Amino acid sequence: MVDLTESKIEVLSTVSVVNEKNESVDVALVEERPLTIYVDKKEVLTLMTMGCFPELLILGYLKNQTFFKELDDIQSLQVDWQTNAVAVISSRNAPNIEKLKERVTVTSGCGQGTMFGNVLDSLKGTRLTQTTIKQSRIYFLLQFLGKYNTVYKSAGAVHSCALCKDNEVLFFVEDVGRHNAVDTIAGFMWLNDVKADGCIFYTTGWLTSEMVIKVAQMGVSILLSRSGATKMGLDVAQQVGVTLIARAKGRHFQVLSGVENILFDELP
Amino acid sequence: MVDLTESKIEVLSTVSVVNEKNESVDVALVEERPLTIYVDKKEVLTLMTMGCFPELLILGYLKNQTFFKELDDIQSLQVDWQTNAVAVISSRNAPNIEKLKERVTVTSGCGQGTMFGNVLDSLKGTRLTQTTIKQSRIYFLLQFLGKYNTVYKSAGAVHSCALCKDNEVLFFVEDVGRHNAVDTIAGFMWLNDVKADGCIFYTTGWLTSEMVIKVAQMGVSILLSRSGATKMGLDVAQQVGVTLIARAKGRHFQVLSGVENILFDELP
Repeated sequence: MVDLTESKIEVLSTVSVVNEKNESVDVALVEERPLTIYVDKKEVLTLMTMGCFPELLILGYLKNQTFFKELDDIQSLQVDWQTNAVAVISSRNAPNIEKLKERVTVTSGCGQGTMFGNVLDSLKGTRLTQTTIKQSRIYFLLQFLGKYNTVYKSAGAVHSCALCKDNEVLFFVEDVGRHNAVDTIAGFMWLNDVKADGCIFYTTGWLTSEMVIKVAQMGVSILLSRSGATKMGLDVAQQVGVTLIARAKGRHFQVLSGVENILFDELP
Repeated sequence: MVDLTESKIEVLSTVSVVNEKNESVDVALVEERPLTIYVDKKEVLTLMTMGCFPELLILGYLKNQTFFKELDDIQSLQVDWQTNAVAVISSRNAPNIEKLKERVTVTSGCGQGTMFGNVLDSLKGTRLTQTTIKQSRIYFLLQFLGKYNTVYKSAGAVHSCALCKDNEVLFFVEDVGRHNAVDTIAGFMWLNDVKADGCIFYTTGWLTSEMVIKVAQMGVSILLSRSGATKMGLDVAQQVGVTLIARAKGRHFQVLSGVENILFDELP
């Protein structure tokens, strides 16, 4: 059982700006903070985050980057906002940090991050279990999710991601980096042993290869985005069996792969 | 004089998708390709890029990441899309790759990238030369730039950045990663010895700390964005003297720092 205490920190600041009428107005800005990960006292890297659910973010990051396979491999994880550091102590199977850090890929798209070289390899041969989704459920979730993005509504500058099942939102997170939001959901699933079967992943961000890879790593086979996709995002989705639905907004959407999994039960 | 041959590659693909009416339609998707940088045969890292102006992107990346100080430090730069690699050969002052790679920061916000630890240090004590900008010029540029974003209009999933001076757009670029677009403009300025004085930097992306740092590194003191800012983006702007204008769209904008440099000559 990983020893983990949840830390809390303000995610918004109010500042005074001048608008086009030369009037002072107060606006909310999203915080962006460095958080340096140390595993067994070795520096791994620094993430920039808004600071919501930092423990889940780091858990998900370490899992997605293949630093740890089992939750029990981690003894403790402690975020310290005084020093902007997170100390992770392994209990067994200590990762080889130097080897993992050797190859770094700067990924693309809106809200991109870094992937260590071994992540792409880890998906070789993966074929996700297929799930069907009704068009009416897509519409229900799109409308339902509109109530969640409170930071975006007040300050912008964040992406949202959500994990949904049936008509329920299991977890919702916003962050300045979209990859952070995805990693936070991975951490949530890992810590709470949430099964990916039948889950739907929603994001406001572009469906780049990184996005599809991360969602496939979690075992989620339906990926729904408000935004568009890249060609490589589509290629990866076809390869691993992710049903890719882009430009989902209002009554519109585009199915890029896995159209056989969509039940068109509410044609406009 | 750096030896550099410009490579060309397709940046869009057409694929068939199924829309909400269960109809097949053709849509354009942006390409996203890995490009691995080797400096003096040592692997530095892999960027994911749409592939427009890859030589300028790599030049700007290496400059912004402080791998090279002078253009003459680089003997040649060759992009090879067969192997998705770019070979950079130094002519003198070969960078210490291992040392530069030691500390990596995954930056946040929409279209984020990676910064090596020494980048933040390199700005210490920087205070940019201030430039004034008329409100009427902001409006002119916003309208003018609307004609440039051709990839975004056909495929979405990209950010645009532009370098402007007076009423002119000196350079315009779109990429899947916003940081790539910024680095490409840095490469353009470096290769063509464009002076930053009086320049205005425009981006469609969020004004995160990374964005402000990169623009300050280029010496540009006016940063204009269609999107919002983070608190840390504002903090850096105030520290180095960047006039930060966010949410610039139509007739609206918000001046977050450097309001004394704005001439309100076209109040709505």
